[in-house]
Amino acid sequence: MRIVEIRERTASIASDIRNAYIDFSKMTCSTVAVVTDTIRDGRPVVGFGFNSNGRYGQGALIRERFEPRIMETDPDDLLDANGRLSPHAIWDTMMANEKPGGHGERSVAVGTIDMAVWDVVAKIEGVPLYRLLADRYRGGVVDDKVWVYAAGGYYYPGKDLGALQDEMRRYRAMGYRAVKMKIGGAELDDDLRRIDAVLEIVAPEDLCVDANGRFDLPTALAYAEALAPYGLRWFEEAGDPLDYRLQAVLSEVYDSPLATGENLFSVQDQRNLIRHGGMRPDRDVLQFDCALSYGLVEYLRMLDMLKDHGWSPRTVVPHGGHQMSLNIAAGLGLGGNESYPEVFKPFCGFADATPVEDSYVGLPDAPGIGFEERATLYAEFRKLVEDLGY
Amino acid sequence: MRIVEIRERTASIASDIRNAYIDFSKMTCSTVAVVTDTIRDGRPVVGFGFNSNGRYGQGALIRERFEPRIMETDPDDLLDANGRLSPHAIWDTMMANEKPGGHGERSVAVGTIDMAVWDVVAKIEGVPLYRLLADRYRGGVVDDKVWVYAAGGYYYPGKDLGALQDEMRRYRAMGYRAVKMKIGGAELDDDLRRIDAVLEIVAPEDLCVDANGRFDLPTALAYAEALAPYGLRWFEEAGDPLDYRLQAVLSEVYDSPLATGENLFSVQDQRNLIRHGGMRPDRDVLQFDCALSYGLVEYLRMLDMLKDHGWSPRTVVPHGGHQMSLNIAAGLGLGGNESYPEVFKPFCGFADATPVEDSYVGLPDAPGIGFEERATLYAEFRKLVEDLGY
Repeated sequence: MRIVEIRERTASIASDIRNAYIDFSKMTCSTVAVVTDTIRDGRPVVGFGFNSNGRYGQGALIRERFEPRIMETDPDDLLDANGRLSPHAIWDTMMANEKPGGHGERSVAVGTIDMAVWDVVAKIEGVPLYRLLADRYRGGVVDDKVWVYAAGGYYYPGKDLGALQDEMRRYRAMGYRAVKMKIGGAELDDDLRRIDAVLEIVAPEDLCVDANGRFDLPTALAYAEALAPYGLRWFEEAGDPLDYRLQAVLSEVYDSPLATGENLFSVQDQRNLIRHGGMRPDRDVLQFDCALSYGLVEYLRMLDMLKDHGWSPRTVVPHGGHQMSLNIAAGLGLGGNESYPEVFKPFCGFADATPVEDSYVGLPDAPGIGFEERATLYAEFRKLVEDLGY
Repeated sequence: MRIVEIRERTASIASDIRNAYIDFSKMTCSTVAVVTDTIRDGRPVVGFGFNSNGRYGQGALIRERFEPRIMETDPDDLLDANGRLSPHAIWDTMMANEKPGGHGERSVAVGTIDMAVWDVVAKIEGVPLYRLLADRYRGGVVDDKVWVYAAGGYYYPGKDLGALQDEMRRYRAMGYRAVKMKIGGAELDDDLRRIDAVLEIVAPEDLCVDANGRFDLPTALAYAEALAPYGLRWFEEAGDPLDYRLQAVLSEVYDSPLATGENLFSVQDQRNLIRHGGMRPDRDVLQFDCALSYGLVEYLRMLDMLKDHGWSPRTVVPHGGHQMSLNIAAGLGLGGNESYPEVFKPFCGFADATPVEDSYVGLPDAPGIGFEERATLYAEFRKLVEDLGY
């Protein structure tokens, strides 16, 4: 069994939304296909992956460093003891001759390939990825549905309070109880008016607010004081993702749940948040996104690190709104998953036949991650492998 | 005044050396030229930059994101209040629409362009960069020579103790009192024999040892116990660069100087080392390398951060062995600079006419960083701009 070829294609996911930190007018996304020599139905079994949103496509790094390292390695060295493709061995091969530290960009490139590797490994086994993960790492226990929340509430030109409320009504009509909106792209008073407007549609315990790392400590504390009376679901990424002290100070004064972690891209960074960030395992939320942070192989190390520190996997609700994290959530027992009902299409979203009900979503029975069960996304992936009979 | 064009060329710096973490068999390096519309001697004034060693060339990121952002900006927005090219404004332009966190790869791309920007700014002013920095940020005080040490002692196939000693003798003959050797690529006992062999050539207070982030805590403590009696110049990068707790624990048990920081690529990461790493401002050494970590604009923020925490710039001895850090050291009063007399040629090394004497090196009077005073390196840069009359 061997990998025959790795293909990459960069797609535009430009849009006119913005958060408190960036706009998405030139955002790109890498799609990857890992082609194996295993033949089913007259064509090679292929795994697909893409990088999560918010970071740029990584086609150049994939082509310059990570794809060649895999393809130049003896295929037998990429197998486990049972002769199956080993995501762990492939990961080690990709990261050969990479220095420690500096966890950005390459973590996205590796995470994208890693996603495609897990997809193809599960397809070759003929099982959904969540089932494979539960069997290998969780004694076979699968969550049959996963809590999801609708992430939106972006700033965009001309969007007023009525438009924000309409957006939230749409999410409720789609089956989401819990929603998230951006803050920090306006003044505090304006943001409070936006929050008040959304709270006409959803209950405080169903509303998350996300500052995208924009605040310095005084601003974070001012928002914390203003937000505290609401009792919101969570207050996300108040300060710079690496400012663990700000996070720790915030947790001293803000009793309701805090969330962060989507911009920590290695187990070393994630461990520093647990060690130094003052996060509270009884209420706070960790949002690490495997697709941005060296993939599921590294994510398993992260979950081990959490266990060593006494944290449950239920405290993890990944960023990104993609099917990979949904599989990990169901297979490894995370606390839920983000969802973007209206942005980052077609990359974000779940299988077409699994509607969201009361903020929970099920998973399809298809082998692999289940990209084939999402027509608009699968159409993107097919562009990579049409010549192979797809 | 405006930037007319930014050019990038990726050069191979492959070699057969290795440290405890990686080999350098496929190492690459980006060279960059920033071409302005200022004409001197019938040709445009050009600034040069390159990324430091140990991380790969970043041509793709430069071409995809950072060069276009500069070239698509109104040139007037890249000037300071005096109508001069502003490295700070150019930096802000490069980092537009980049999310916080994830400081790797792009930090190298930005650092490479930033180096060329400072080179051209100083050339247009007609002064050496160290003079410009001293005038702008240090009341005009310049160090007329900078402490340097010879970094080497790599592992390579077939290298025995005699060859290691010969290498150190060569460094001494070149004018270096202080030298550095790798550890952690062999067993502790072997490394101690290597250290004993080198100590036949240099005094303990002139010998640095570098583990390149390889050790876990038990191994770091075992090395610390074994190294303590020697009283070495410093013990560098014992553990993972992001494992601040390991660094803090090590400083509890190891009295002699510790050094680290070359793999921390943002002021946020560098601040975390100061906050959480237990480093001691009276003896320890910080090795941040501007070329890997968003350039001199970010380095100035780092020095401000150090000042806020009560640390002197003399505690900083940058990684990288390049002329950019040498200018910063002389102009801003750092503690010294690394030097690679035998590796990473031609990128590392100083001006041809400034010999090392008793481990100190002077700087040329040429405008800019002084790359033109180093013939082998200038030959690399000329490849970028031969068509412009260079």
